[in-house]
Amino acid sequence: MSAPDPTVGELSEGRILAGILARVGPSHAAVGPGDDAAVLAAPGGRVVATVDTLVHGPDFRLAWSSAFDLGWKAAAVNLADVAAMGARPTALLVALAMPDDTRMSFVEGIADGLRAACDALAPGCAVEGGDLTVSDTLTLAVTALGALDADVSPVLRSGARPGDVVAVAGALGAAGRGLGLLFSRFTDADGSPVAVDHSALSAAERVDLAAQLRPEPPVALGADAGRHGATAMMDVSDGLVLDATRLADASGVSVALTSASLGADPASALTGGEDHALLATFGAAESLPAGFRVIGEVRARGEASVLVDDRPFTGRGGWDPYRDWDAGTG
Amino acid sequence: MSAPDPTVGELSEGRILAGILARVGPSHAAVGPGDDAAVLAAPGGRVVATVDTLVHGPDFRLAWSSAFDLGWKAAAVNLADVAAMGARPTALLVALAMPDDTRMSFVEGIADGLRAACDALAPGCAVEGGDLTVSDTLTLAVTALGALDADVSPVLRSGARPGDVVAVAGALGAAGRGLGLLFSRFTDADGSPVAVDHSALSAAERVDLAAQLRPEPPVALGADAGRHGATAMMDVSDGLVLDATRLADASGVSVALTSASLGADPASALTGGEDHALLATFGAAESLPAGFRVIGEVRARGEASVLVDDRPFTGRGGWDPYRDWDAGTG
Repeated sequence: MSAPDPTVGELSEGRILAGILARVGPSHAAVGPGDDAAVLAAPGGRVVATVDTLVHGPDFRLAWSSAFDLGWKAAAVNLADVAAMGARPTALLVALAMPDDTRMSFVEGIADGLRAACDALAPGCAVEGGDLTVSDTLTLAVTALGALDADVSPVLRSGARPGDVVAVAGALGAAGRGLGLLFSRFTDADGSPVAVDHSALSAAERVDLAAQLRPEPPVALGADAGRHGATAMMDVSDGLVLDATRLADASGVSVALTSASLGADPASALTGGEDHALLATFGAAESLPAGFRVIGEVRARGEASVLVDDRPFTGRGGWDPYRDWDAGTG
Repeated sequence: MSAPDPTVGELSEGRILAGILARVGPSHAAVGPGDDAAVLAAPGGRVVATVDTLVHGPDFRLAWSSAFDLGWKAAAVNLADVAAMGARPTALLVALAMPDDTRMSFVEGIADGLRAACDALAPGCAVEGGDLTVSDTLTLAVTALGALDADVSPVLRSGARPGDVVAVAGALGAAGRGLGLLFSRFTDADGSPVAVDHSALSAAERVDLAAQLRPEPPVALGADAGRHGATAMMDVSDGLVLDATRLADASGVSVALTSASLGADPASALTGGEDHALLATFGAAESLPAGFRVIGEVRARGEASVLVDDRPFTGRGGWDPYRDWDAGTG
């Protein structure tokens, strides 16, 4: 009798792969999974490519995230990076490194999350390749590829011009508040993560938690922004102020934000990480595609990269994975 | 006074990235590192894409591999997968997850190895994007992208036909022997890796060790094989017999190998892993491009996927990362 839920160490690589491919398919590629490499359509002779990694410990805790959550988030954060170039995601490649004692049901949950995120956020995009490895540390490195429409230039960080409006699509601050909830309410006396009790959360808190664990970046709006002539765009992953600083510095301008446009909790909106909202600049407010809202304006370069309500922003600017992560936190 | 060789935990992500980019450049891409995603040329509207991961423990040991070796090998194994489709590598994306106490000089060594492998094995290919993460386990996940010549179809595993010749380019068996050397000669009484004493090695052993630590797959020959009408091709990464079995099964044929064509150590050639040679089939021996040598023939499907000297191969077939890795080995 075979075990009802074997570990990956008990299965061959071929069996594990077959279990994953049965869940992430069908392929939309010229050559999908199963050969040495995938072969994908790259319309217009251009391809957009990005990679982002989720590592157990700094990027997620298994007490808080389900396998489905992990697969979803690993897909979503990469789809957002493709969208931030003004492109449509076309394919994911997934490098999954996991401990020998990982249950096959967990692997299947990751596969389900990857597929569900593609279906919900970027229909037509699918997992077209990957790699399985043994590791002491559960790690998902996802590469996303994308296509630009024929008449659209990639939207860079460096194209903002004085006089442009600054706009955003997607939630700001919720994911950071969700992370705060996890650390403040779902850790034990030693600071170790414990399972989330959803019944202990208000409706608003559940929204924040979902933004952290299963983010829904406005992927389709990236290509919309490109078609509407966005002058600059980027994914807000490390906090609005830190990412706006990067955009301002790359463009040689200053970005002036209005806190009144940032919702009920402007402090979280300014500094909370992992929003995966799209920050973009446009030549005129009337050219904004549906789904974007104005949050400020681009000015000629001044002393500060980012102003909030006309003052240089002096708070904590956002999240840096090397300086801010404390391995001892749990 | 700043530390002469800081750890990544002491540096900002921006500083680490700047240190890497100074070594892997220059970019050949329309949009290289520094934005949300890279934008790469994909001639003919097609792109080849693959990912492969090196994890500390199962895939390398720091006592045996230098940072340069790691960067080189992570690039080389992915370049080989692109070549095995009949394509030319155009770009790498590198997801590097590393402990907080990793020295910056080590990161620079990885960057140097990545670049040197690209320059030596696939000129014109460069690191065009990536991601940095904190992890307890040093992990390099490299995605390689490639281009197919305008008139060339991707070469799949499934195209071998009875009557084709079976050919190989690159060394077989050396990398496996090199791994054997490491485990037999450079471990302590507990089986833990110790530094390699090169002066204790014969010239032939040094060649084997180099094949393991710094492989030189015949990357340029992949596109050559595509142009010469290879009917099937794959990267030999898990041992010739195991990979030939995959090719035979995908093509619905049997592969008959001749041990006399496999050099002085056919046993290693048949089962040693990590060769990263190119195994290909061609319609006729006279169509072989330079660099390939005949090692057998394709036959109508029989009972066995692979025959060696007309007998079904009964030895250990090759390497499976999930069944063969013993985490307790060191």
